[in-house]
Amino acid sequence: MLEKLKRLAQKALLDRSLAPLLRSCRQLVSERGQANVYALALEVIERYKTLPAAQREAFFAALATGFSPHPDQVLAAATRYAESPAAGNLATLTQAVEPLRQELLRRVNRAPGGTLMLLSMRNDLLGLLRNSPELAAVDADFLHLLSSWFNPGFLRLERVDWQSSAALLEKIIHHEAVHEISGWADLRRRLQPDRRCYAFFHPQLPDEPLIFVEVALVQDMAEAIAPLIESQPDAAAAASARTAVFYSISNCQPGLRGVSLGNFLIKKVAAQLSTELPQLKTFCTLSPVPGFARWLAQATTEGGDAAWSAALQRVNAWRQAHPTPAAPDLASMPKSLQEDLASLCARYLVSASHEALGDPVARFHLDNGARLERVNFAADLSRKGIKQSLGLMVNYLYDIDSVEVRHQQFMDNKVSHSSAVRRLLKPAP
Amino acid sequence: MLEKLKRLAQKALLDRSLAPLLRSCRQLVSERGQANVYALALEVIERYKTLPAAQREAFFAALATGFSPHPDQVLAAATRYAESPAAGNLATLTQAVEPLRQELLRRVNRAPGGTLMLLSMRNDLLGLLRNSPELAAVDADFLHLLSSWFNPGFLRLERVDWQSSAALLEKIIHHEAVHEISGWADLRRRLQPDRRCYAFFHPQLPDEPLIFVEVALVQDMAEAIAPLIESQPDAAAAASARTAVFYSISNCQPGLRGVSLGNFLIKKVAAQLSTELPQLKTFCTLSPVPGFARWLAQATTEGGDAAWSAALQRVNAWRQAHPTPAAPDLASMPKSLQEDLASLCARYLVSASHEALGDPVARFHLDNGARLERVNFAADLSRKGIKQSLGLMVNYLYDIDSVEVRHQQFMDNKVSHSSAVRRLLKPAP
Amino acid sequence: MLEKLKRLAQKALLDRSLAPLLRSCRQLVSERGQANVYALALEVIERYKTLPAAQREAFFAALATGFSPHPDQVLAAATRYAESPAAGNLATLTQAVEPLRQELLRRVNRAPGGTLMLLSMRNDLLGLLRNSPELAAVDADFLHLLSSWFNPGFLRLERVDWQSSAALLEKIIHHEAVHEISGWADLRRRLQPDRRCYAFFHPQLPDEPLIFVEVALVQDMAEAIAPLIESQPDAAAAASARTAVFYSISNCQPGLRGVSLGNFLIKKVAAQLSTELPQLKTFCTLSPVPGFARWLAQATTEGGDAAWSAALQRVNAWRQAHPTPAAPDLASMPKSLQEDLASLCARYLVSASHEALGDPVARFHLDNGARLERVNFAADLSRKGIKQSLGLMVNYLYDIDSVEVRHQQFMDNKVSHSSAVRRLLKPAP
Amino acid sequence: MLEKLKRLAQKALLDRSLAPLLRSCRQLVSERGQANVYALALEVIERYKTLPAAQREAFFAALATGFSPHPDQVLAAATRYAESPAAGNLATLTQAVEPLRQELLRRVNRAPGGTLMLLSMRNDLLGLLRNSPELAAVDADFLHLLSSWFNPGFLRLERVDWQSSAALLEKIIHHEAVHEISGWADLRRRLQPDRRCYAFFHPQLPDEPLIFVEVALVQDMAEAIAPLIESQPDAAAAASARTAVFYSISNCQPGLRGVSLGNFLIKKVAAQLSTELPQLKTFCTLSPVPGFARWLAQATTEGGDAAWSAALQRVNAWRQAHPTPAAPDLASMPKSLQEDLASLCARYLVSASHEALGDPVARFHLDNGARLERVNFAADLSRKGIKQSLGLMVNYLYDIDSVEVRHQQFMDNKVSHSSAVRRLLKPAP
Repeated sequence: MLEKLKRLAQKALLDRSLAPLLRSCRQLVSERGQANVYALALEVIERYKTLPAAQREAFFAALATGFSPHPDQVLAAATRYAESPAAGNLATLTQAVEPLRQELLRRVNRAPGGTLMLLSMRNDLLGLLRNSPELAAVDADFLHLLSSWFNPGFLRLERVDWQSSAALLEKIIHHEAVHEISGWADLRRRLQPDRRCYAFFHPQLPDEPLIFVEVALVQDMAEAIAPLIESQPDAAAAASARTAVFYSISNCQPGLRGVSLGNFLIKKVAAQLSTELPQLKTFCTLSPVPGFARWLAQATTEGGDAAWSAALQRVNAWRQAHPTPAAPDLASMPKSLQEDLASLCARYLVSASHEALGDPVARFHLDNGARLERVNFAADLSRKGIKQSLGLMVNYLYDIDSVEVRHQQFMDNKVSHSSAVRRLLKPAP
Repeated sequence: MLEKLKRLAQKALLDRSLAPLLRSCRQLVSERGQANVYALALEVIERYKTLPAAQREAFFAALATGFSPHPDQVLAAATRYAESPAAGNLATLTQAVEPLRQELLRRVNRAPGGTLMLLSMRNDLLGLLRNSPELAAVDADFLHLLSSWFNPGFLRLERVDWQSSAALLEKIIHHEAVHEISGWADLRRRLQPDRRCYAFFHPQLPDEPLIFVEVALVQDMAEAIAPLIESQPDAAAAASARTAVFYSISNCQPGLRGVSLGNFLIKKVAAQLSTELPQLKTFCTLSPVPGFARWLAQATTEGGDAAWSAALQRVNAWRQAHPTPAAPDLASMPKSLQEDLASLCARYLVSASHEALGDPVARFHLDNGARLERVNFAADLSRKGIKQSLGLMVNYLYDIDSVEVRHQQFMDNKVSHSSAVRRLLKPAP
Repeated sequence: MLEKLKRLAQKALLDRSLAPLLRSCRQLVSERGQANVYALALEVIERYKTLPAAQREAFFAALATGFSPHPDQVLAAATRYAESPAAGNLATLTQAVEPLRQELLRRVNRAPGGTLMLLSMRNDLLGLLRNSPELAAVDADFLHLLSSWFNPGFLRLERVDWQSSAALLEKIIHHEAVHEISGWADLRRRLQPDRRCYAFFHPQLPDEPLIFVEVALVQDMAEAIAPLIESQPDAAAAASARTAVFYSISNCQPGLRGVSLGNFLIKKVAAQLSTELPQLKTFCTLSPVPGFARWLAQATTEGGDAAWSAALQRVNAWRQAHPTPAAPDLASMPKSLQEDLASLCARYLVSASHEALGDPVARFHLDNGARLERVNFAADLSRKGIKQSLGLMVNYLYDIDSVEVRHQQFMDNKVSHSSAVRRLLKPAP
Repeated sequence: MLEKLKRLAQKALLDRSLAPLLRSCRQLVSERGQANVYALALEVIERYKTLPAAQREAFFAALATGFSPHPDQVLAAATRYAESPAAGNLATLTQAVEPLRQELLRRVNRAPGGTLMLLSMRNDLLGLLRNSPELAAVDADFLHLLSSWFNPGFLRLERVDWQSSAALLEKIIHHEAVHEISGWADLRRRLQPDRRCYAFFHPQLPDEPLIFVEVALVQDMAEAIAPLIESQPDAAAAASARTAVFYSISNCQPGLRGVSLGNFLIKKVAAQLSTELPQLKTFCTLSPVPGFARWLAQATTEGGDAAWSAALQRVNAWRQAHPTPAAPDLASMPKSLQEDLASLCARYLVSASHEALGDPVARFHLDNGARLERVNFAADLSRKGIKQSLGLMVNYLYDIDSVEVRHQQFMDNKVSHSSAVRRLLKPAP
């Protein structure tokens, strides 16, 4: 692995298009570059932009090998620190351990357009990681710095509505990842007074939404997605709504993968809605269960109790009879089979340990301290919804006073769930 | 030293007012706190605010001892990394070395008001450092994070003028550290079209200037301060000016000590002025020499050449005759003695090695890549000016194309200077 | 006529829904109302809003009869003024002549929402004028005041682009009256860097565009509409463009009919574009000739010269052969017949006297001081274009230095035209 | 009178500096000028600016004679209208009566800077009116148009505070006409949370306050000015205040004299404060009585009742003994004499008929529908206060629900007053 990196890095030093970029990088982090960071950082940016895509891996390999801490210096500093944990020794240690490429990234960030460039670089890097896992060391530095710079304290929460610029709304349409927005009319409906959309922005990227969430203000916890995105707007509803349903959350910056924003976005929006509309009592989601159908296909009856095995067999039988089910098939499913499905879904989400839980949406909300509140049958009858989860969706409940405890429970491998979910887990034999 | 810290930290754990604050800190960085960072960070802020000043040292001592990396974990990780510098080993090492208090500060920063709180905490900490140098380890973490967050790429350059809010202008009056602003009329003169003032702001602290610089747009490199701050405004002058004189630069946030902002401020303002007023040819300063009089008092004739010794003796004789010189005394000084003074000042600034140079203003500009251009006699006849430097001021020249080379020269212990200064260094015998 | 008004007004005084509104109006203009204008004006607005549509005519009739100047007071004041034109007599005269309803409208305008209300009222009134021409006296007061309030000096010119709010862009789509915008993608093309859109706004109606113009930045004077609204955007073109083509101008507020805004909009946009893009040399329009086909159908050969009569006969023969021509029919028209058509169009626009000229677009631009520059065959092959003008469009040229002279010529019944148009007017026999 | 105007106007036509200005004016209102209003209006503005001050009277005289309606046209139109009040006849009449200079002013207003120019012109005109009362006809047109354009519905209410620009605050200091602001520290005190300042702005003059009012938020109706402008700020007081005292209202634009703004300003601020601070129960003023001392000096005992005559004699005796009273003299005045003074002041303000009431401040507030609430002894011990009113100030109470009735009473020559004032009017014999 490391060998491959070294080979790539070696090549980089000789390559005609890469060598100047690496030279600029070296200059930028040098003592001498200190006085001219601005111009040198622009040079690095320019040279990276014109670098052929095929050379990127070699470039990152050069960052991985040539801008890493020196093992012997690190070991010496660690030894001294182990002898005496004095401030001076700690300072030496810290300096020895920090990869020089962190300073490189910090200096690139000082130029105009630097932040956007780093996001774009990281996006490239993430694409290479699969085949070159040793680049993870470089990615760790990106993630470390981006997490610090995109600290939620620095972000600006902004409401997105019909007064927002077309340029911004176009990005919202483009990035919506959960329930596709089919055009301007569709978007408009989601921005009416009884619907809300909020996005986080970073001061350095004022025109780029980082992440956004869509909320429906309704009476009761929603049990299906269609009424939220298709119904006629009802301005009066917003004023009397008692429930805020977070029905979609989408990231816009792939270069920020791993920087935790969604958790804060949901909590900040909940806080803001509470202030603005004090009559809101419940904050919950209506969420997909993207891993359910796949899990179902792999689940075996072994090791499960009898009721569970029976339910699984009944569902599997139905699935064999309906290899590519459509909305009407689900609508005509017998009630008892619906309950089997809901039971299995609850089992899927609740019984797995914290680490084994494969459903990313569930992981996200449970990690945020939410509770699994309800399983809804025939809630998403879109093609994607049927394929992913046989049309099931679930609600996660955010009870601000309990998120801390529930997050801890999740860390301790217990998934918080409502009594309704508990009943599903113990199906009648 | 470390013993003292440990004693203090121990005390902290028992103290009635400190214990809750430390408990909040622990909770905030805990796994469980993850889901509730916002509220917990506010709690830390609140508890620090109400902490009696006398307890602060113990608090920081607790951060120094209890939130530091574990030496044995560090050593183990360093050893593994020395064995193989693989990405995974580097990740483990980095994690082992980063003090937990960095995460604490990052999380405090997420709360509203967090950034301002951290600046205020650091200000307190800087005050304690003198007597408790071991707290330097804590301060290093503050400095590391603040440098990253106050990255010049994130700062907003804003012109301060008579359209600025009174609240901001009041802060400018308050923080001007070089040439005191005596009131609103005085300030107003410095904001006329032929004068400029620019400040850096951080998006998180929109009402707090971080650092500001005052500039005079004039024909020639200024040789005295009074005409810059006392003359009648001349709107036409701005349009025909060929020289921009940076005559004052002041920091507003003591909690940002060590975060390099001035260098970027000067260069960004120079770039902006160049664009706006392309007829500007020269960018220079008119700067005090705050360490000169003190150095003169300590200088000995030993080791110097004859001309230098003679000059020093003549100046010292005059100083003994004028123990507390006033403006008229300087005005009536013989020309030859003026030259002696200027020579000595040039020597003071040029001959010392990079590390020995005691004058902070000189260090700042030379480090930025400026050149010592001219020594001006009777340039600042205020009480402070006479006391610090017998009325002398100097110009540093910023030639953007040369800053990189000159910074490097300064690092190599060579002070860039003009031919005029060179002549001063070789006084006629 | 007047009798009808009086009958209507009488009815109004008795009507259950009208009487309260009229009472509020009386109160608002009374001496006593002076101290409470704000609340009373809101009352008038509220009552008008809830007035059944069928009662509006009676309401305006009451304004026409009950809020008009008293003829005998007017006559007495005019007599005194004729005896001596002293300031006092003029003041008395002015007061006697001003209809009380002007003060009513001014006071309504003071309430929040008042301006929008007046625009809406006038829109209603314009709808009634056709059947009740005597209401013109009321309309004159609306027009007088609105002209004063929507004085171009008070309007804000704003560029409309992809950064504008969706709410505004939706209004642009809705109000485009010349070349329909078929949706967001279509609009987007018209807002690219090589196209421009500008609108006037009134400070009192910040969200309501009053009128907007669309401009194409191109090399040469455009000869057809399709390339302007259908071609791919060409960002570089904007920078090198030498010609600005105003290809669409649309009013958004029917209540402002008769308030001259378009003239100022074109000139202000031309001035702004000149400053921003000094390489622009030509400012012209590409305009429809909406009255041409109708005129052609009615034109007789009598009184015309021989060449003209012959051309008209040839064109009519073709039209009989092609009663509902489509785009391909026009494309295959013989060249000589195209010239006949262009000649006739030139004649239509040029030969009529200023008052007889029936083409509103021509009247508008000629009145603004533009010159008829060129007649373009097959320039608008949309259904509407073929129906209105057999596909012809014309260019009007705005030469800022000549608008004053040309406007005067138009007032003197001479239509300014280019030598190319002159040639068309004298067709070869 | 008219003769003088004609003579002046005649001169104007011949004068070398005036003739071009008048020519531009004629051109601007001509038919031909229509197409070029923007440029021609700028020309008028430029020429007026450079007109020698001594020529202004002749210029306005030319406007008075040459741009007035033609008496015979007016008479003919009035006669036709008397014969039949049809819409057409009214339109002809209106057109005949409107002085051409109104159109001139409207067109000047279309140019950038036009509105400010008109205000400045009118200011000049007001200065000339005293000696040339016949120019009143011109002034009437200015007033008519400015009233329409500065319609309160078009004005923006803005809070002025320490966040306002120094440029604006400087204007506030400059224009404060009631209780002088002695500098920035003094101003700052008046902008603390327990004090408020609000100004009206016109969209066309975004940097020019038109009128502003200062308000103190206190517990009880204030009885002296010093505590309002000198006391230490008390942030908590604002939150618990039950009374808003309007203690100063100042116009900033002399060119707007006669345009009623103060009335609306007070009512709009009261409405805004009510919304923001619902605990406020009382809205009142603390106002000077600028005409009282002068009235006292002229008052005779004739025609008054015995008690009143006696009080007047006692006060006059004291005044003869204290020809130039100072603050201590007033402080040591016997209580009975204080009551005499208050009684006389009440009489001064209440007994005069609406038209005879000489006190402009009283006229303003009573006309607005306020009630005279209380007379305060030793309320303003500044030199100005003692000179104008022997230190007396009064409170006017604004009870929004009663302003309409009270305004009407004032029009009917009845001054609304409280029972406390009523007692003062009937002094014990």
